[in-house]
Amino acid sequence: MLSKNQIKYINSLQLKKTRQENQAFIVEGAKSVLELLNSDFEVQNLYVSEDFYKENNLLWDKQPFAPEIVNQNDLEKVGSFSSNNAAVAVVKTKENRELLAEEGEFVLILDDIRDPGNLGTIIRIADWYGISKIVCTNSTVDMYNPKVISATMGSFSRVSMFYTDLTDFLGKLKDINIYGAFLGGENIHRISFPASGYIIMGNESNGISEEVGRFVTHRITIPRFGVAESLNAGIATAVICDNLRRNTAR
Amino acid sequence: MLSKNQIKYINSLQLKKTRQENQAFIVEGAKSVLELLNSDFEVQNLYVSEDFYKENNLLWDKQPFAPEIVNQNDLEKVGSFSSNNAAVAVVKTKENRELLAEEGEFVLILDDIRDPGNLGTIIRIADWYGISKIVCTNSTVDMYNPKVISATMGSFSRVSMFYTDLTDFLGKLKDINIYGAFLGGENIHRISFPASGYIIMGNESNGISEEVGRFVTHRITIPRFGVAESLNAGIATAVICDNLRRNTAR
Repeated sequence: MLSKNQIKYINSLQLKKTRQENQAFIVEGAKSVLELLNSDFEVQNLYVSEDFYKENNLLWDKQPFAPEIVNQNDLEKVGSFSSNNAAVAVVKTKENRELLAEEGEFVLILDDIRDPGNLGTIIRIADWYGISKIVCTNSTVDMYNPKVISATMGSFSRVSMFYTDLTDFLGKLKDINIYGAFLGGENIHRISFPASGYIIMGNESNGISEEVGRFVTHRITIPRFGVAESLNAGIATAVICDNLRRNTAR
Repeated sequence: MLSKNQIKYINSLQLKKTRQENQAFIVEGAKSVLELLNSDFEVQNLYVSEDFYKENNLLWDKQPFAPEIVNQNDLEKVGSFSSNNAAVAVVKTKENRELLAEEGEFVLILDDIRDPGNLGTIIRIADWYGISKIVCTNSTVDMYNPKVISATMGSFSRVSMFYTDLTDFLGKLKDINIYGAFLGGENIHRISFPASGYIIMGNESNGISEEVGRFVTHRITIPRFGVAESLNAGIATAVICDNLRRNTAR
């Protein structure tokens, strides 16, 4: 059984301020928790249902901590999604370390993505397309927000994130291709991408900001065949990543 | 000013049952309402803020109805999204007419898409990629659901929808290519699509059902370069449509 203080602490991690003070966040639901246990994140506490404990019996010996079996009612009290009542973990956040594109690697850059669902979806897309690093403006929604973690469907455990002042970050890059999604850029169906570089995706309403746009070396566009004015940020990221992987010079 | 009965009627259109009984649905927000006025949908009532009325002054002469100016407070009472307080329209639903792929045309088929946000996003994607017809299982979420209409960002006004028993519908098709998104199908990066056909997208959790899958002539797959288990339904639709448009035999 969870104590009142435990419940209070876990629920307080819904807030970014508390997560930062405690350097901890929560991961909920069977799928996300299983992916978490396969990652290098440090789990501080794991609360599981009896069923989940039994179903994953072979896992527990390998862990440096003992999961605590709690009842459904308690799990629901600390979970933000009523469907995710199999497991809740309290996890240590990672250090915010600089990420750079290595030789043969593309890194995604997010200029001010505000919607947690969009960020989670973009992390999942990056994971599908084998992009393991994302650099974000400090104004981008926190990756440890429970809605972001949930929308990644476990991919948060495999994609590294770096929050920074983007103009400083971009200002230090030299001799590398920086692609940016704009209206009126080069048609991505006709681009042969190099092996390494960066791709910047802009804010949901305003696209890439002027200050960030100055660093873009190649303006690219998803060709439109119909009438809709735009595509959402997650959709645009997926289509660009698909074209990147399809059409990289080798 | 809106009467209590008007407010009650408009709010009742949040429910599918009431929409069907009254053959009417609601469209909210400046952008969606402006796209609506450019379409062949029949507007029954239009309630607008004074600002919206003035900003679009030139529009009103062309309409077969007079918009009614109401105060912000009333608009908020009948809108489901607090941000959309410029205009609300009550609109006649269209007849559920059969849609077929003409020569040189691709039609999208949805097998049991349940999430309103996903359906809205898919309609917006179809509109971007110049696909103007979507056929759905009767179990697919209602296109006139306010959350669907909102997520289409106006594209509902340009994409026609047909709800039907899919196995009946597919059983009648002859000599046409029917593509279906499955795991383990042919890599879409290597497919040369014909000029006409159908593409079936499956349910968010279960993919394409067995009964519907029997009619698929070509199983196709989005290649994965990383580790994520899957992509969401909207993302998968966008990537497939992009590959269709990029790689159609001419």
